[in-house]
Amino acid sequence: MTSTTDLNMVNAYIPGRANVAPATAALIERRDALLGPAYRLMYEHPLHIVRGEGAWLIDPEGHRYLDIYNNVASLGHCHPAVTEAICRQVKTLATNTRYLHDTILELAERLLSTVPETELAHLMLTCTGSEANDVAYRIAQVRTGGTGVIVTETAYHGFTDAVSKFSPSLGVTVDLGAHVRLVPAPRLYHADGADISERFTRDVEAAIADLKRHGIKPAALIVDSVFTSDGILPEPTGLLRGAVDAIKRAGGLFIADEVQPGFGRTGEHMWGFQRHGVVPDIVTMGKPMGNGQPVAGLLATADALAEFGKNSRYFNTFAGNAVSCAAALAVLDTIEQEGLVQHAATVGKILRDGISELANRHEAIGDVRGVGMFVGVELVADRASRVPDRELTTRVVNRMRDNGVLLSACAMGHNVLKIRPPLVLTAEQAGIVIETLDEALSAVRSEKRG
Amino acid sequence: MTSTTDLNMVNAYIPGRANVAPATAALIERRDALLGPAYRLMYEHPLHIVRGEGAWLIDPEGHRYLDIYNNVASLGHCHPAVTEAICRQVKTLATNTRYLHDTILELAERLLSTVPETELAHLMLTCTGSEANDVAYRIAQVRTGGTGVIVTETAYHGFTDAVSKFSPSLGVTVDLGAHVRLVPAPRLYHADGADISERFTRDVEAAIADLKRHGIKPAALIVDSVFTSDGILPEPTGLLRGAVDAIKRAGGLFIADEVQPGFGRTGEHMWGFQRHGVVPDIVTMGKPMGNGQPVAGLLATADALAEFGKNSRYFNTFAGNAVSCAAALAVLDTIEQEGLVQHAATVGKILRDGISELANRHEAIGDVRGVGMFVGVELVADRASRVPDRELTTRVVNRMRDNGVLLSACAMGHNVLKIRPPLVLTAEQAGIVIETLDEALSAVRSEKRG
Repeated sequence: MTSTTDLNMVNAYIPGRANVAPATAALIERRDALLGPAYRLMYEHPLHIVRGEGAWLIDPEGHRYLDIYNNVASLGHCHPAVTEAICRQVKTLATNTRYLHDTILELAERLLSTVPETELAHLMLTCTGSEANDVAYRIAQVRTGGTGVIVTETAYHGFTDAVSKFSPSLGVTVDLGAHVRLVPAPRLYHADGADISERFTRDVEAAIADLKRHGIKPAALIVDSVFTSDGILPEPTGLLRGAVDAIKRAGGLFIADEVQPGFGRTGEHMWGFQRHGVVPDIVTMGKPMGNGQPVAGLLATADALAEFGKNSRYFNTFAGNAVSCAAALAVLDTIEQEGLVQHAATVGKILRDGISELANRHEAIGDVRGVGMFVGVELVADRASRVPDRELTTRVVNRMRDNGVLLSACAMGHNVLKIRPPLVLTAEQAGIVIETLDEALSAVRSEKRG
Repeated sequence: MTSTTDLNMVNAYIPGRANVAPATAALIERRDALLGPAYRLMYEHPLHIVRGEGAWLIDPEGHRYLDIYNNVASLGHCHPAVTEAICRQVKTLATNTRYLHDTILELAERLLSTVPETELAHLMLTCTGSEANDVAYRIAQVRTGGTGVIVTETAYHGFTDAVSKFSPSLGVTVDLGAHVRLVPAPRLYHADGADISERFTRDVEAAIADLKRHGIKPAALIVDSVFTSDGILPEPTGLLRGAVDAIKRAGGLFIADEVQPGFGRTGEHMWGFQRHGVVPDIVTMGKPMGNGQPVAGLLATADALAEFGKNSRYFNTFAGNAVSCAAALAVLDTIEQEGLVQHAATVGKILRDGISELANRHEAIGDVRGVGMFVGVELVADRASRVPDRELTTRVVNRMRDNGVLLSACAMGHNVLKIRPPLVLTAEQAGIVIETLDEALSAVRSEKRG
């Protein structure tokens, strides 16, 4: 059964489309019965994973898969610095923020010291990135008196009731809010030489005007500063400046969703927005923050928080517990001690350069782009028309999975390979990625011909 | 500075009202600077906690506080079964639900086996109770095509944008949604002999009619089956039946918010709704589920989930990771192995009986009620009028804190002592609670006279 929904999701397992091994089929059946119809799996042949170790995920038969997709275990799966911090703290205390505790304050000091932008004065903690964006939206509504939200056309910001209404990548079967406006993502590859920074500014201005015309006061422009689900669009730097000015002029807040670009992944800065020379009113963060421990949060300016803080006391039972804070502190320590921002830049470049070379032999590669440990590889039907090749992309993803390299795809056309390795990926492992991609592109091309 | 907001919150620390020790004052100042204005502390003299052990919380000087308030560490702080499960799993794997993994399926089987109500067929996992209620509300909207929500007058269901709109206990400075209706809590003590089950049914029916009169289709009745923040109102059992029938007749869902009553706290069943002989469409759970590890979720009927599952794929990056599932499994094992449901009944009764005896000597005690490890003690200005004594309640709470017993208050009048000890509380520890309460009531009464 293939529903619209399965097709909405990039790289979804679609029941019945491929033959899966009997043991896997039995596990999927058990899972469907227990977890119900809302859960999805990835890949034509879903993976059963039992162990993680550095950049590797391991199945019950001991097959090792190079995981260049999960940006949660950003220091590598089960990094000892984090697991030891968790084990130490979990035996001591894990209680809530209605008592005083030092660990949360240390974490706040450390995180605030990563933003030279001193306007960002306060840290609030949540358990998930969705909660961080949800609370950021509540704060924006209180601060601005508005409800209007502007996001990019294939954005994903989370699954809560409020946030899913401005997460168009969930697909056409999840309604956007009447107070939500989409703007085209700044796709340099498809811009035909136009100034996409100027175009993005104009589009945001038009969205603001349209909200106002409908009597909706703008509350926020929310942007992932690397436009991950829009297709990984890091260039040009500075692109956000005009749009941020526009939303601020209109009385709205600028919220930088750093759930994906944050914690050094760009190889240039700790946070993606810093590449654009803008100062957000709120910075949300999540996924890699605890290297797997559920911890997320936001930084906000005193101005953004003042009214909200007076009227809406904030309490999140598990958020800010000492175990999650200890895990997040260990992540910050490790990024610093292992020099992972610089490392992400170095190995990320090796990866991009290697894939760019493949473009000499593989016509399907329309564009290779990225920054640090973000790489987007846009696959097209032909280079002149730049028409997305979704089917080819899906086959490459699944071929690579079968050959032991785990990635997925993104973008409106579902045709951009989405490569987000752990920051600790080695040059040798980057080599494996390049070779495996090379083989997959060749194999899939000959299948197509055959 | 005392704002309306501080007064909205039961037992909030109010800056400047009492002299706190210099070390504490410095920590509060540092915290305010780092975490900003939305966070609150408890007690006149906030506590600095560094360690937890069983029913005890411990400050930096080694003072021990008997914690009869936090229903998260329901097995006792840092229970070894849970911390060992976490430490074992965190070194092995903690990845997401887009791969197959056994632990989440074991957890689903175990949780589903706690509900003889076979209609409840599926488990979905979140990280927090707020997320569970938020997703439950999304499911209810898709299932019913409605948005209307009915909750009790002092309910708390969470902090997300959607859920805070139906959490009136956040105070008058957080707006309720236009699609939200409040019904009076079933306060037996104030009912003057009326049939409160019938009254509650009538109130819910009136709320449904009012929603419809405003063109709002009812989506759900959401109720904490012990009415914890409304003042701990466990009696009479069966009370919910008429209201549940009414919402189902109106096409809405019944959502049992078991974040507080769940996991055996009532000493009678695993879940609070089971005391009322009703079958929810959705059961949400959280706080004690991982004994401190951020894990929460919901059980739902196949009927409630069918449409949502088709249209709205569900993914929550951290929810369902193997570490959280392992913690939740260890909690279920421990409840069973230590016989904690029965234990909660036994020691809970000792606690209630002891406090009921105090009523012979303390006129302020208007009512003592509860079930299992839930005890509500309603303090009144005089027994005839039953007028809430908020000030006295606050003084008792703070006096007990100073004497090493941690509890708080609840209910619309902020005058009900809210006692939710860990399920492992011993009879001896129950004795400490009773003695300390006795002393506090005497001391506070003589202060009042003096």
